[in-house]
Amino acid sequence: MSFSPAIRDFIDNLCGLPGIGSRTAQRIALHLLANQRQLGHKISDSLKLALEQVKECQRCRNFSEEELCGICQDDKRVKQLCIVESSLDVWAVEQSGSYSGYYFVLHGHISPIDDIGPDQLGLDKLKNLVDKIEFDEIILATNPTVEGEITAHYIQKKLQPVNLKMTRIAHGVPMGGELEYIDGGTLARAFIGRTNYLEGENNN
Amino acid sequence: MSFSPAIRDFIDNLCGLPGIGSRTAQRIALHLLANQRQLGHKISDSLKLALEQVKECQRCRNFSEEELCGICQDDKRVKQLCIVESSLDVWAVEQSGSYSGYYFVLHGHISPIDDIGPDQLGLDKLKNLVDKIEFDEIILATNPTVEGEITAHYIQKKLQPVNLKMTRIAHGVPMGGELEYIDGGTLARAFIGRTNYLEGENNN
Repeated sequence: MSFSPAIRDFIDNLCGLPGIGSRTAQRIALHLLANQRQLGHKISDSLKLALEQVKECQRCRNFSEEELCGICQDDKRVKQLCIVESSLDVWAVEQSGSYSGYYFVLHGHISPIDDIGPDQLGLDKLKNLVDKIEFDEIILATNPTVEGEITAHYIQKKLQPVNLKMTRIAHGVPMGGELEYIDGGTLARAFIGRTNYLEGENNN
Repeated sequence: MSFSPAIRDFIDNLCGLPGIGSRTAQRIALHLLANQRQLGHKISDSLKLALEQVKECQRCRNFSEEELCGICQDDKRVKQLCIVESSLDVWAVEQSGSYSGYYFVLHGHISPIDDIGPDQLGLDKLKNLVDKIEFDEIILATNPTVEGEITAHYIQKKLQPVNLKMTRIAHGVPMGGELEYIDGGTLARAFIGRTNYLEGENNN
């Protein structure tokens, strides 16, 4: 015996999501059918609505239901531009309270294996934005992975003619981390990027 | 900054699912919007379809798109009735290949705290089924939790007048388990339910 076709179909689709295996998908499907049909309708409807309404902000490519997202509409922000790989990164930086400028979302990183080149990352749009608006600083905040570093390097080369202050977020031992558990690559970056004690700023 | 209302709404609904926390919900929502809009539409549509098409089997209460589920339609099965708490249990028993009779799904267990009494578990339907069809054996396969034991006990009392062979699945040390890690309650049940060596059947 297996599940009926409609349940099977829903479970198979759920399995396409990140972090959802077949057991979790089964449990979700049967939970919705057995106890929470109203929640099921809500999920289906709100997903449909989000897919229809949510587009990319015309300026920064973050998700928005309007032409310009809330951050781009806010003209009280400082004239800095932080370039990140995903909308989750925007959210994470905003939550940290450490930055109050604007963003540009790449929605990925350069990855020839996945056939993702500069075109998919909206780099022409980024170039236009930087040409049009006078930012005091561009902060490259792609992930410290091989692909993220390559992407940061590519962007730096592409924007270099604009002659702007361009920085990269610091890499090192995370707060609360213990040296004995940190990998060699991170430790090496932590030593290279060391700062004067009590100054707390990288002098590179 | 927070997510746009449509995204927020979808994330909040997702958080109502078992095993999905807010971080996973965020990742799922942005993953669908950024890379997998087609999968998003598929999930929304297949969930809607399942909610509309899937009902309870008229006989055993398992999920089915027809009046009678595939198992109840199969008249080659042995005349045994296994009573379980959920559809996932039916699936688990079927996968084990250890049983080839019919099922009755309670969709829960007696739980006064959650306001679930005998009515919600379809026990009248179970009584009618047992009165109508002559089963050789009723197997009580509710979970070995307090609520599952109470439910099994209640069903046994309710069906007793029918005068049928009624059994309970064995509780004991799971295969591959090690005694030193097994809780006292399970070990006690394993000793009470011990069988003659090489016979392998409980003689109670």
